[in-house]
Amino acid sequence: MVVGKVVGTIVSTRKDPKLIGNKFLVVDIYEKFDNGNKGKILAIDSVGAGVGDLVIVTLGSAARFACDTPDMPVDATIVGIVDDEKDIRINS
Amino acid sequence: MVVGKVVGTIVSTRKDPKLIGNKFLVVDIYEKFDNGNKGKILAIDSVGAGVGDLVIVTLGSAARFACDTPDMPVDATIVGIVDDEKDIRINS
Amino acid sequence: MVVGKVVGTIVSTRKDPKLIGNKFLVVDIYEKFDNGNKGKILAIDSVGAGVGDLVIVTLGSAARFACDTPDMPVDATIVGIVDDEKDIRINS
Amino acid sequence: MVVGKVVGTIVSTRKDPKLIGNKFLVVDIYEKFDNGNKGKILAIDSVGAGVGDLVIVTLGSAARFACDTPDMPVDATIVGIVDDEKDIRINS
Amino acid sequence: MVVGKVVGTIVSTRKDPKLIGNKFLVVDIYEKFDNGNKGKILAIDSVGAGVGDLVIVTLGSAARFACDTPDMPVDATIVGIVDDEKDIRINS
Repeated sequence: MVVGKVVGTIVSTRKDPKLIGNKFLVVDIYEKFDNGNKGKILAIDSVGAGVGDLVIVTLGSAARFACDTPDMPVDATIVGIVDDEKDIRINS
Repeated sequence: MVVGKVVGTIVSTRKDPKLIGNKFLVVDIYEKFDNGNKGKILAIDSVGAGVGDLVIVTLGSAARFACDTPDMPVDATIVGIVDDEKDIRINS
Repeated sequence: MVVGKVVGTIVSTRKDPKLIGNKFLVVDIYEKFDNGNKGKILAIDSVGAGVGDLVIVTLGSAARFACDTPDMPVDATIVGIVDDEKDIRINS
Repeated sequence: MVVGKVVGTIVSTRKDPKLIGNKFLVVDIYEKFDNGNKGKILAIDSVGAGVGDLVIVTLGSAARFACDTPDMPVDATIVGIVDDEKDIRINS
Repeated sequence: MVVGKVVGTIVSTRKDPKLIGNKFLVVDIYEKFDNGNKGKILAIDSVGAGVGDLVIVTLGSAARFACDTPDMPVDATIVGIVDDEKDIRINS
């Protein structure tokens, strides 16, 4: 998984019917996890996250297992909200 | 998922029979999502997108779940059309 | 998917029995899709491609769906041959 | 798989119910495997690893097969603890 | 798939029970396939490869299909041994 901050939203009216009712959240990957390579990803939310939240994002096929139905055409889902930035304890 | 602009098409007559009837669209990953690493990808379309559209692309195994049949040999499918560039609200 | 040119072959006699009868083709990712990150990949062929052909390659789990049996241990399969380089129409 | 050192933890109270009871461990990819591209990943543990341990991490869909239930929404799981740094024998 | 040379081994006694009996081989991705991005990966072996062998590695979910059981928690499996470096014929 990666950690990132929700920094925005995207509106898409014409979309796959299975995605209707889902918010598209723009997640900026947290610099400790970003190694300059992931930048921003678009994720759907499964835990009530919003702009400004620090979140845990599952990528790839696992992203579907956090959705209500296992055939959602998504490759990134927010599966947790980090309680507080200080809860990211990383020994330098 | 990633966001990008449809910038072209590719024609392939000799292809896997399951792909017949699908348009191959070249998607240039939107610079906020590009982190210099994704460049262009080839995707099939599931929502009626065309050249010039700003689109949402699902990658990996999820790409098959946006197709009519779950055994399509594709790893990138357009699952949404962004209504308007201004609908990409990203707090700097 | 990505687009690339078949630039070589690899011979491997001692291999997984399910791979017997398959050609290993070296595909150099086409510079518009390469963003300096993919370089060369090894793919098996499902449409009769050969050295010199410009091809469409499906990556990841979808690669198995272009094979005769869905349990092939492959992560890259050629699923289309581009008719002609001019058929790659990309608006700059 | 990749090899890395557990360097921290993350606390997330509001998370997918299936993740309850799992520790989120921050793994810094071991420089021989890091090629400047993977940096840190967040993994769950399946073998009793803790901060300071050198571990083997499985990524992608395989990560679920190291969990108790195959529908865990995770894309990285620790599947082994390296006995000792000297047990990483790599010929230069 | 990628091509690489087996350059080492890793010993892990405390590991997922399904991995018991498998050798962890360190594979250095062959420079023509490395594009500076893949570096080393840890793979299990399915064809009797050893240190010094030039091998073909399948990545992602396909890696499980080269194992005896389809629920192995692995994302990289050696599926072929290249007969000889000269058998990698790549037109410059």
